[in-house]
Amino acid sequence: MTLQHAQPIQRLIQELTKLPGVGEKTASRLAMHILRGSKEDAEGLARAILEVKEKIRFCSQCFNLTDQDPCRICEDPKRNREILCVVSGPEDLLALEKSGGFRGLYHVLQGVLSPLEGVGPNDLRIGELLARLKEEGIREVILATNPSVEGEATAQYLAQRIRPSNVRITRIARGVPMGGDLQYIDEVTLSKSLENRSPL
Amino acid sequence: MTLQHAQPIQRLIQELTKLPGVGEKTASRLAMHILRGSKEDAEGLARAILEVKEKIRFCSQCFNLTDQDPCRICEDPKRNREILCVVSGPEDLLALEKSGGFRGLYHVLQGVLSPLEGVGPNDLRIGELLARLKEEGIREVILATNPSVEGEATAQYLAQRIRPSNVRITRIARGVPMGGDLQYIDEVTLSKSLENRSPL
Repeated sequence: MTLQHAQPIQRLIQELTKLPGVGEKTASRLAMHILRGSKEDAEGLARAILEVKEKIRFCSQCFNLTDQDPCRICEDPKRNREILCVVSGPEDLLALEKSGGFRGLYHVLQGVLSPLEGVGPNDLRIGELLARLKEEGIREVILATNPSVEGEATAQYLAQRIRPSNVRITRIARGVPMGGDLQYIDEVTLSKSLENRSPL
Repeated sequence: MTLQHAQPIQRLIQELTKLPGVGEKTASRLAMHILRGSKEDAEGLARAILEVKEKIRFCSQCFNLTDQDPCRICEDPKRNREILCVVSGPEDLLALEKSGGFRGLYHVLQGVLSPLEGVGPNDLRIGELLARLKEEGIREVILATNPSVEGEATAQYLAQRIRPSNVRITRIARGVPMGGDLQYIDEVTLSKSLENRSPL
């Protein structure tokens, strides 16, 4: 009669397929792993899922994900409060922090403009960004959205909106990545890299 | 200060990397998805994980995963109790059930012999299989382990152990898959397919 796994297994597989990039087969493999694993591991995973939803919120200043408000960066007295780096998501913020190249504050848009996916200016934290520029005495905004079509369009749009605020607007440099090999770099990157060349 | 995500996010990522095939990057992507998703989805997933560990056990007869003991197949009066199909895992059982080609009972080994991974006869449900042959009046055992090196070795080993029980021992046919194209089939499969040819 059983053309399917027992109900609870079936339900777990179904819940797992809601995760991005997880199809039926992967979900089934993950479910079997959880079934074979220890009770502690399963409980640890379930607890971590619940905890993240309970404890993590958006920082009311920069809209990064945080377990305290304001977040540790916004609160840090050693950060330069005159320079604001605009990123699309928390992962990008993290990558910039890891690079160690930035000691100012951040603003997390929570996405990029994407007409095709129905993401317009009102879906991003743009109003909040403009409000910060007015209120916080910021002198430079670095637009650090991805060098993709959407990221570039978002940066262009933001620059237009920010211009009246009379702060310096910059865009992260796009060019040949360090350690890269010219012959394998795409043409758009190469032409950007020539266009944005700097004196030595 | 924050070179990492907030603690709860970090913990979720760490728990997710314990799943097979999930590295740091995938775990981070999954965690972000859970964070962005609804509370209901997160709770649904957590509940499904806990429920599966609570409710799913091994059937005491066939060692398939089940939420009732004996499982629905072992309990089903319409199944032929004289023929036993030996598989390595619940997924294989499910695949055979879906094929609709078998109406007997199953025995789930829970693995295959694999000296390299330290899986010996005592790690599989072989003792239980031999006991069933003695007690349940079984007349045929179909060895349906995978046609892989380990699966074949396991089938050979089982055949040796079962032989004294004086039941019929068969092995699932290995050959050209239906819909397959001879020119793309590997040589071992082709030679097996010739070797095991049947009269028309």
